[in-house]
Amino acid sequence: MKAEIFSIGTELLMGELTDTNAAWIAARLPALGIQLQWVSIIGDDLDMLANAFTQGMRRSDIIFTTGGLGPTQDDLTREGVAKALGETPTVQPEVVQELERYFQGRGASMPATNIKQAHLIPSAQFVRNRNGTAPGWWAERDGKIIVSMPGPPGEMHPIWEEEVEPRLRQIVKDEVTVTRNIKTMGLSEGAIDEIVSEYFGQENPYLGIYSKADGIHLRIIARARDTGTAQAMIAPVERGITDRLGPYIWGYDDETPEQALGQVLKQKGLTLATMESCTGGFLANTITEVPDSSSYYKGGVVAYSNEMHFASGVPPEIIESYGEVSQETANAMARAIRQRLGADFGIGITGATHPSPDESRPPGLAYLSIEGMGQLKEMELRVPPRRITIKRRVSNNALIELRKLITAGDGHRK
Amino acid sequence: MKAEIFSIGTELLMGELTDTNAAWIAARLPALGIQLQWVSIIGDDLDMLANAFTQGMRRSDIIFTTGGLGPTQDDLTREGVAKALGETPTVQPEVVQELERYFQGRGASMPATNIKQAHLIPSAQFVRNRNGTAPGWWAERDGKIIVSMPGPPGEMHPIWEEEVEPRLRQIVKDEVTVTRNIKTMGLSEGAIDEIVSEYFGQENPYLGIYSKADGIHLRIIARARDTGTAQAMIAPVERGITDRLGPYIWGYDDETPEQALGQVLKQKGLTLATMESCTGGFLANTITEVPDSSSYYKGGVVAYSNEMHFASGVPPEIIESYGEVSQETANAMARAIRQRLGADFGIGITGATHPSPDESRPPGLAYLSIEGMGQLKEMELRVPPRRITIKRRVSNNALIELRKLITAGDGHRK
Repeated sequence: MKAEIFSIGTELLMGELTDTNAAWIAARLPALGIQLQWVSIIGDDLDMLANAFTQGMRRSDIIFTTGGLGPTQDDLTREGVAKALGETPTVQPEVVQELERYFQGRGASMPATNIKQAHLIPSAQFVRNRNGTAPGWWAERDGKIIVSMPGPPGEMHPIWEEEVEPRLRQIVKDEVTVTRNIKTMGLSEGAIDEIVSEYFGQENPYLGIYSKADGIHLRIIARARDTGTAQAMIAPVERGITDRLGPYIWGYDDETPEQALGQVLKQKGLTLATMESCTGGFLANTITEVPDSSSYYKGGVVAYSNEMHFASGVPPEIIESYGEVSQETANAMARAIRQRLGADFGIGITGATHPSPDESRPPGLAYLSIEGMGQLKEMELRVPPRRITIKRRVSNNALIELRKLITAGDGHRK
Repeated sequence: MKAEIFSIGTELLMGELTDTNAAWIAARLPALGIQLQWVSIIGDDLDMLANAFTQGMRRSDIIFTTGGLGPTQDDLTREGVAKALGETPTVQPEVVQELERYFQGRGASMPATNIKQAHLIPSAQFVRNRNGTAPGWWAERDGKIIVSMPGPPGEMHPIWEEEVEPRLRQIVKDEVTVTRNIKTMGLSEGAIDEIVSEYFGQENPYLGIYSKADGIHLRIIARARDTGTAQAMIAPVERGITDRLGPYIWGYDDETPEQALGQVLKQKGLTLATMESCTGGFLANTITEVPDSSSYYKGGVVAYSNEMHFASGVPPEIIESYGEVSQETANAMARAIRQRLGADFGIGITGATHPSPDESRPPGLAYLSIEGMGQLKEMELRVPPRRITIKRRVSNNALIELRKLITAGDGHRK
């Protein structure tokens, strides 16, 4: 089944917003046996949209759209579909009632403009949106399908997962593509390339290597008539890679460093506390991205001043003797927050985001300390001195190194 | 002059890479008087590409492409242009020599495949690429232009700035577009739509309304023969909007809530400390995105356990009496961290991310407290209960409300 995606909104054409919806959907199509052949970003222009739908339906079997379902005059996706199909949208009273209930639940009355969102054409059905006022549309005509979803990812993602993907699974019978992602940290791209070189160069399964902010990823891609067959093609390659790279592998597929760490902490009933300076809360914020992280994360301190270091139990004489950016200070931070919160492990991070007056500590230099259960892991890092790069790289290192420390005695993870 | 952009490469359609080139180019077009009307992401497929060029040239005056200029068989942008124009590429010996010199300079000999990059059609000229082996193409036929650039941003950006943009400035005599972005918080999209309805529906200046995580944005877009004229067209609309929405406006153009707040804190020499639970470090991490935030941000606590609350000076009896998710606890958090760090303002945030056992506190319910300089701002928020939405919305509210509190006596910001 051939597909295209339309990301709709003039703001996307003004370069003021980078569309992430198309890539998000694109990543989910291969496993469904759907082949994406075109992505368009189109402005809020009725003729352009109608034209795009007409063309797209000639070229592809299914069109996914995001955006343009809001209540304002700019939002023209529904109108574009209707025009391309030559149908007239009419108001659906039961949806008006639902919208009214939605606004009442928020202590407001429905603005008159929102009635736009209760329109439907004969060829379309509504797609339920639990997180907003704009329901999606699922339109079918002459064997072609148009699925329209709202633009905000917080609304689009659940609609995709709960409504759209289950329906697609029933419809699509094409060859599927299965992907296995193996995530490593601690070896360079070149080193990995050499270690697993024998697996490169095949067409199916195909092996790709990608450098990311959380390390080097290896991706195995197999195409077959069904998921089981594709997985059987992937298995020997995966085994070969895990045998050779075992201790450097920290996760698989969509797993993030914070999820991989959270899982082992939960499994072993261990708790964590953090104190960070140069990462400025990025570490705490990343840890708390994981649902139920409150069961193992006791909290953290973002130490952006000496007052905050001292109030959190870092001895002033350590900072005086070794300087704020030092392994000793990182160690003291990890120890202080662990003891203060009675956690099993403490992470301490300190580093330079600006050049120091005497230039002894270049921006991008950071010290990481992981302390607890009678163990101490010290680490000096040098990363490109962009603020966001420092935050992301140093935090990822902390999460992955703590996981490694905890699982070191367990044997490789399969 | 009407334009479109093609981002070319099958990897973009696999969802493995998010295209940023299109947004980068898009942001540069309005000021050049070029109107972008379509962006396409197209795979490495000759027929698709030729088809896209034919269609695009019918619809637009100029097509910018990135990607597909590499030396491999997959790279088909040149071939696609040639096919659409019905011309045959031939090898240009002087470019072969240049490529040979490029590789010699790196101590290598030119791979045979790279000869692909020395091909040209009669309607095209090369565009110099200082940072790679793939020169661009500038093709002109029947008054239409196709500009093809390599995909890596490190090559594409300098080519754009040094070669493409100067040429465009000479060619394009169209009107320029100037944009003014007005950012509000505290009113719904529908409410704003009604309040400033008289400004909608005009073509030029055009007014758009957008719902974002940091509130509702109004964008005025004016086209005119020069920047000054466009600005003069924007001014009365902007005045009308600021008169009607004044206290709800917190920033303009690219400004973020953390920048807007940081600016007034710095200006007035005030300092800030934070204690947050349901936002899990998002607030601290956002504040520290701003360079030099260490001059006004003393640090923060991410309180994910009672131990952390108590260790930071929140009285246990407050949490016992009112519960963790309560205005009183938020107030105690703001006060405790402000006093502990000797800051001028403290922000306290508490809220529910999970349903509470007795269902009295639904997920998405949060309390915000801003305390300092003899003032106290209390706020109850109800946001959609997605983890990232809670984090972003509640943090943005905190930043924007503190800015409002500090500037309340200053009159509206112009």
